[in-house]
Amino acid sequence: VELDDPVVADEKLSDSELLEAWPVLSTEDRVEGFEILSREQAERIFDQLSARDQAELLLALPLGERRIWMRYLSPDDAADLIQEAAQQQREQLLATLDDAARREILALLAYKEDEAGGLMNPRYARLRPEMTVDQALSYLRRQSRQQTENIYYAYVLDADQKLVGVVSLRELVSSPPGRTVRELMKPDVVRVNEQMDQEAVSNVFAANDLVMLPVVDDQGRMKGVVTADDIVDVVREEATEDIQKMGGTAALDAPYLQVAPFEMLRKRGVWLALLLLAEFFTVAAMHQSQDKLQAVLVLAIFIPLIIASGGNCGSQAATLVVRAMALGELRLRDWWRVARRELAMGLTLGSTLAAIAFAMVYVWHALSTELGQHFLLIGAVVAASIVAVSAWGTLLGSMLPFALRSFGLDPASASTPLVATILDGTGMVIYFAVAGLLLRGTLL
Amino acid sequence: VELDDPVVADEKLSDSELLEAWPVLSTEDRVEGFEILSREQAERIFDQLSARDQAELLLALPLGERRIWMRYLSPDDAADLIQEAAQQQREQLLATLDDAARREILALLAYKEDEAGGLMNPRYARLRPEMTVDQALSYLRRQSRQQTENIYYAYVLDADQKLVGVVSLRELVSSPPGRTVRELMKPDVVRVNEQMDQEAVSNVFAANDLVMLPVVDDQGRMKGVVTADDIVDVVREEATEDIQKMGGTAALDAPYLQVAPFEMLRKRGVWLALLLLAEFFTVAAMHQSQDKLQAVLVLAIFIPLIIASGGNCGSQAATLVVRAMALGELRLRDWWRVARRELAMGLTLGSTLAAIAFAMVYVWHALSTELGQHFLLIGAVVAASIVAVSAWGTLLGSMLPFALRSFGLDPASASTPLVATILDGTGMVIYFAVAGLLLRGTLL
Repeated sequence: VELDDPVVADEKLSDSELLEAWPVLSTEDRVEGFEILSREQAERIFDQLSARDQAELLLALPLGERRIWMRYLSPDDAADLIQEAAQQQREQLLATLDDAARREILALLAYKEDEAGGLMNPRYARLRPEMTVDQALSYLRRQSRQQTENIYYAYVLDADQKLVGVVSLRELVSSPPGRTVRELMKPDVVRVNEQMDQEAVSNVFAANDLVMLPVVDDQGRMKGVVTADDIVDVVREEATEDIQKMGGTAALDAPYLQVAPFEMLRKRGVWLALLLLAEFFTVAAMHQSQDKLQAVLVLAIFIPLIIASGGNCGSQAATLVVRAMALGELRLRDWWRVARRELAMGLTLGSTLAAIAFAMVYVWHALSTELGQHFLLIGAVVAASIVAVSAWGTLLGSMLPFALRSFGLDPASASTPLVATILDGTGMVIYFAVAGLLLRGTLL
Repeated sequence: VELDDPVVADEKLSDSELLEAWPVLSTEDRVEGFEILSREQAERIFDQLSARDQAELLLALPLGERRIWMRYLSPDDAADLIQEAAQQQREQLLATLDDAARREILALLAYKEDEAGGLMNPRYARLRPEMTVDQALSYLRRQSRQQTENIYYAYVLDADQKLVGVVSLRELVSSPPGRTVRELMKPDVVRVNEQMDQEAVSNVFAANDLVMLPVVDDQGRMKGVVTADDIVDVVREEATEDIQKMGGTAALDAPYLQVAPFEMLRKRGVWLALLLLAEFFTVAAMHQSQDKLQAVLVLAIFIPLIIASGGNCGSQAATLVVRAMALGELRLRDWWRVARRELAMGLTLGSTLAAIAFAMVYVWHALSTELGQHFLLIGAVVAASIVAVSAWGTLLGSMLPFALRSFGLDPASASTPLVATILDGTGMVIYFAVAGLLLRGTLL
C-alpha cells in the first residue's frame, strides 16, 4: 500500500487491504475514503473496525453521516463505541439518537464492558404467561418488526418483569392456537446475573450448548439476552488475550497487522525490559558463586541445561493451570490439590530428566575424558539439581496463577517468560547449593 | 473421593465430583454407577463425557441400554462416538440404530473429525423456492416434529439439492401467506465447503456474526449445518490446544483434573525429554568456548541474561504469529512482510534492552570495582550480544510458525520452550563470537 496516494480513494481496494491500511491513515484520509466507499463496503468495513476506531471515525464525520451510523448500530455495539469516546464527546454521540435508544444505551453504559450486562442486547422477545399461542405469535410478529430480530426464543415475564420461563418460536408455531404460553413454556431457564464476568458467561454457554442466554439482575428481573455469536467473539478475544499474555506481551487488543509499530514496541518492550532487569538477579546469583566457578569451571557449561529444565517444567505447569482456570475447571479452592499433584508430577518428571542427563554425562565421559576423573560427581550434581529445579519449577509454575488470582490479578500474567526468568535465578541458587554440598572436599 | 467404595453408587455425588472421579473408576464401577443415577443426571453426565469415554461406557452397557443411549445422541455426536471405537466394535454400535440414522452416520463418518463435514448436523430445515409462505410454514412444522429442531433458518434448495437461498422463520411468520419463498429468500448465503478445517469455519462464523452456517460440497449441494453452539466448543478447544502446545506440552484433550497421572506424565515428559536433549547442544556450544571462559570468567555470569533475552523475544514473536495465524489474520504468503517487520522490531527492542543492560553494567562498576578495568569492554560485549540475540530471536520466533505450516505441521508446535531452547544454543554461539571479536587483543 502506497501511503503517498489517497489510498482509500481507490475503490478497488479489498476489505482486508483497507483494514490493514487503516491504522496508518490520517483522519482526513479515513473520512474522505469512507465517504467514497459504496454503502455496502462501508458497512462491512465499519462492522470490522474496533469500537475505538469506530468512535474516532464518527467524531470526524459530518453530523448527518454520524447520525446515520449511530442509528445503524445495535444498542450493545453503540454502547461499546460510546465507551471509547472521551467524556465531552459522549454527549455529541448520544445527541444523535432518539430518546428511547438513548435511554437504552445509558442503561448499558452503567455496566462494565466485560460483564454480562455489557455484553447483552437489551432487546429481546417477551411474552406473558397468560397469552394464548395465537396472541403470542401475533405479538411476536409485531415485536419482530419494531424491536428485535431475536424472536426464536421468547422469554416469559411476570408482572414484576421477573423471568419465569422460556418458549421457542418453533414450539409456538407447531402448537394448537388456543393453548397458553404457561402450558408450553419451560420453567427452568438457565440464566446469568448481569454482573457475571464474560469468561464465566462463556463457560455457561459451552456447558449447556446454548444459542441464547437471558441476563437477570439480583432480583431475577430480565435485563437482556446474550447470543452465541457474541460468545464466539468473547471466547476468541479471551483466548487471544491469554495466549498473548502467556507469551510475555501485553494483550494487543487488535489484529497483528493492524497494530501500529510504536504501539507494538510498547506492548512488547515494557515486559522485555522488566524481564531483563529481573534477569540481573540471576547475574547477581552467579556472581555470588564465582569462586565455585573458578574452582570447577565445568560447572558453567551445564548452567543453561539446568535452568532450562526448570523453566520448561514451570512453563508447562503454568500454561495448564492458567487454561484450566479460564475454562472454569479449576477454582481458587483447588490450589492444595493442584499443589500436591504438581509436586508429585515435578518430582517424577525431574527424576526422568535427571536419569537422561546422567546417562548423557556418562556417555560423554566414555567418548572423551574431558570431564576428568570426577565425572560421576559432576553427573550427580547435574542430576540432583535437575530433580530439585524441575520439582520447584513445576510447583512454582502451578501456584503462581493461583497467587495472582487470589490478589485479584489475571492468572495469565504468569507468562512463560516470567516463570522462566524467576526459575533462572532460583535455579542457579539451587544448582550452586547442590554443587557446594556434593563437591565439598573433592572439587570444592 | 474414596476409591475403595463404589463411589458412583452414592447418589448424592454432584455432577462435577462424578466427572472428576470418572478417569480413575473401573469399567464395572462406571456401568454400575451409571445405571443407578437418575435419568436426568445420567444424561447430564453423558453429555459432558468425551466421545471416547462415551464409547467405552456404551460398549460395556447391556444391549438395551446401549440402544437407548445411541438413539439419544444427535447424528453428529453419534458419529464422533463411533469414530472413537475400534473397527470391530463400530459394527456393534451401528447395529443399534435404525436404517435411516445408520445411513446418515455412515455419511458423516466419511469426514475427518476436524473439518466442516465432521462438525455439521446433517439435519436441517429445507424448502423449495416455489413454495408459498403458507406451504413453507406447514412443511417446517412437520420437519420440526420429525427431523430437526433447527428450523429458525430454512435453506432453499433447487431440484439438484443446490443451495440457492436462505429464509428465516421470523420472516416467514411475519409475511403474507400467499408470497413465495423465492420472493422472500436472501440469495447470497455465506457457506463453507464440507472439507474446510474447523478453525477456518470458526473464523467465517466470527467474521459474519452468524448463528448457523450451511455446509456444501464441491458442486454446491447442501450437506448440513454448523451451529454457533458447536462453534463455541470448537473455538474453546482449538484455543486450549494452541495454548497447551505453546506452553510446551502435547494437547491434553481433556479437562486438567480428569487426565490420568500416567497420561499426564507422558504428554509433558516426552516434550521435556526432547528439550533436554536439545539443550545438550548448548552444553556442547559452551564446551567449545571453555577456553574463553577460562580466560574471562566474568563472561559466564552474563550467560543466563543473554540467552533469556533471546528466548523472551522469540517467545513473544512466536506467540503473536501463531495466534494471528489461528485467527486467519496471517497467511503463508505474508511471511516476507512479517519477517521484515519482526526484524525491525527485534533490532529496536534489542537496542533498547542493550542500552538498559549497558547502563546496569556501568552502575555496577560505579558501585564496586568487581568487573575490573575492562568493564566498558564487558558492557560492550553484553550490549552487542543482546542486540544480535534479540534480533535473531525475534526473527526465528516469527518465522518458525511459517516454516511449520509450510510443511503442513501445526504452527503452535513452535512452543515457547522450543523457541527458548533453540535460542539457548544459538545465543551462546553468538555471545562467544561477539566476545571473541571485541575482546581480541585485550582480555582474550
